[in-house]
Amino acid sequence: MKIAQIAPLMESVPPRLYGGTERVVSHLCEALVQEGHDVTLFASGDSVTSARLVACTKEAIRLNSAVQDHVPHYMIMLDKLRRSSHLFDILHFHIDAFHMPLFRDIGAKTLTTLHGRQDLPDLLPLYRAFPEMPLVSVSNAQRQPIADANVVQTIHHGLPLDLLAPTYETHCGYLAFLGRISPDKRLDRAIAIANALGLPLRIAAKVDKVDEAYFREVITPLLGRAGVEFVGEINDCNKAKFLGEALALLFPIDWPEPFGLVMIEAMACGTPVLGFRCGSVPEIIDDRLTGRIVATVDEAIRAVPEVIRLDRRAVRRRFEERFSSRRMANDYLEVYRSLGRGAKLVPHHAASALGSNIIPLHRKSHVEQHAS
Amino acid sequence: MKIAQIAPLMESVPPRLYGGTERVVSHLCEALVQEGHDVTLFASGDSVTSARLVACTKEAIRLNSAVQDHVPHYMIMLDKLRRSSHLFDILHFHIDAFHMPLFRDIGAKTLTTLHGRQDLPDLLPLYRAFPEMPLVSVSNAQRQPIADANVVQTIHHGLPLDLLAPTYETHCGYLAFLGRISPDKRLDRAIAIANALGLPLRIAAKVDKVDEAYFREVITPLLGRAGVEFVGEINDCNKAKFLGEALALLFPIDWPEPFGLVMIEAMACGTPVLGFRCGSVPEIIDDRLTGRIVATVDEAIRAVPEVIRLDRRAVRRRFEERFSSRRMANDYLEVYRSLGRGAKLVPHHAASALGSNIIPLHRKSHVEQHAS
Repeated sequence: MKIAQIAPLMESVPPRLYGGTERVVSHLCEALVQEGHDVTLFASGDSVTSARLVACTKEAIRLNSAVQDHVPHYMIMLDKLRRSSHLFDILHFHIDAFHMPLFRDIGAKTLTTLHGRQDLPDLLPLYRAFPEMPLVSVSNAQRQPIADANVVQTIHHGLPLDLLAPTYETHCGYLAFLGRISPDKRLDRAIAIANALGLPLRIAAKVDKVDEAYFREVITPLLGRAGVEFVGEINDCNKAKFLGEALALLFPIDWPEPFGLVMIEAMACGTPVLGFRCGSVPEIIDDRLTGRIVATVDEAIRAVPEVIRLDRRAVRRRFEERFSSRRMANDYLEVYRSLGRGAKLVPHHAASALGSNIIPLHRKSHVEQHAS
Repeated sequence: MKIAQIAPLMESVPPRLYGGTERVVSHLCEALVQEGHDVTLFASGDSVTSARLVACTKEAIRLNSAVQDHVPHYMIMLDKLRRSSHLFDILHFHIDAFHMPLFRDIGAKTLTTLHGRQDLPDLLPLYRAFPEMPLVSVSNAQRQPIADANVVQTIHHGLPLDLLAPTYETHCGYLAFLGRISPDKRLDRAIAIANALGLPLRIAAKVDKVDEAYFREVITPLLGRAGVEFVGEINDCNKAKFLGEALALLFPIDWPEPFGLVMIEAMACGTPVLGFRCGSVPEIIDDRLTGRIVATVDEAIRAVPEVIRLDRRAVRRRFEERFSSRRMANDYLEVYRSLGRGAKLVPHHAASALGSNIIPLHRKSHVEQHAS
């Protein structure tokens, strides 16, 4: 198939450090190319890909201090794509809302993956206004707040099998925390759990500007405790070692995590995960096989010894079965093909306009049979 | 003519307090209706207008704490407009870049007024990518950084003649400063000028979140000086009195001000303006008639006595000649009509796409004859 992937311009594909969406787009592109498809990636010019790259900015916007307004760059990218859309069988968007009005008339050959949380009040009106735009959620939990949106499928993220190689060596005997430091991620819980068990905790994390006060006031006092070590941001090269040598990953979140890439990164390393029952967690962890799902800190403290004893080779095997980027790519290909078979074109001027902005459609008609 | 005006959704039209763009859109709508045109305003639902209102959000986004992402609301508005665009002779946009890809195929029946500064590096690439979108600048100074953009005309803003009535009473004998407190606006210069002359200075201003540190560190220490009075934010009702009773307005800016609405608000009240030679200032002030244009604080101190002695009735007359909203509306109508005569449709798929995103066009063909 001729496939266009449209990535955010904030980070390169893949991102140099953080950037979950750009990382997933990269894995998807590589897997689709591997499967023999003709893939064109619309992304920042410093992206590195096996697909054909259409550079839509010189470099990732977040790294370019000369860029003061990101909107013009997205508008230029979308225009470029719109005028070349006849060259593709499918246009796969990862950029939230910007493209919806421009592509609704060819909505049936588009797919939009929802990467963020969907419980914001601004989003359901958006999806209702663009019912011909097929959506993919990255977990079933993510789509719950938008029950009547045109979500045709849930597709979990995946990683290349060779990205993070397991070593099965945990001689240092520590628990790991990896991610942003924010109230949502509840690093304070991770510290409480490790302390109660007398186990070392290593923290690889970044602090966003918006979370600096939280970091200073809530987290910094806790970092002084015995056994707690803050190692800062880490890159992909260090990730396999950091996660792979940990006894377990602690994922004590307190928000509706849409997916939680770090859970499957840990599993790729053979490292089991202790997660809190929130958002996607119960879908990603196979309870008592790749980790444990708990609801409270007390429960977590009781569960850690069991998590640590889980068979790390079985964790890796389960990761390979469920979370490879090849599986992700094949899931997307199935949706691409189903959209192609049911393509319906709704021209720009089809609706009579001011009265209502909902065009009635027999939406989800046949793609629904693929929904999980 | 059947005219759609598309306003930002951040503030209502007109805004309750600040919001230059929404204020201008309001004045333009009222004047076009007054001239007998059929005007439809796309704006927030709490807007108040003589035009037909298409409410695109319940209320102004800035006032609605439930709105966390403004983009979906703009996308829904633009889609609604796109599907009703055949109902209008002209679509007049005041929302920067969001609409450009969606409306380029009917670019010749659109007009986009540039409300912000144009010296950001992100903007010229935008205008080059959308050469069929005719633009209006609000001053000649504003368009200088985008010399090869498709700017068809400069149209200065205007106010309803009855908005701010002059009283010609200045018994309190103070100088006035009105606007945001930011490093650009150089309130510190206004204080230095007033102090040097031993004249009281009254300051009606708001402090944006981004300028709080500047306000605290640079401005607050100066507010304690004798004769300096900070009155906070004022609304339109208080503005006529605040400006009208001032000896002069000080406008000592240090940035490329695109227009500077407060200068003509002062002139409407018969109050002369002392402005610094920057951005639009030399176009707005008639030197030695409605004010003085200076380059330094020393020059300003020497010029104030002359400014104060200017004939306030002549200031008001010049305002009526140059800056009425009726004149603004007629300037826009002339451009609307010229666009209508030269309408060229460029369909979405006309260009061959990936190689270049510039569609060669005989742009500015005949509308250029109307450019100033």
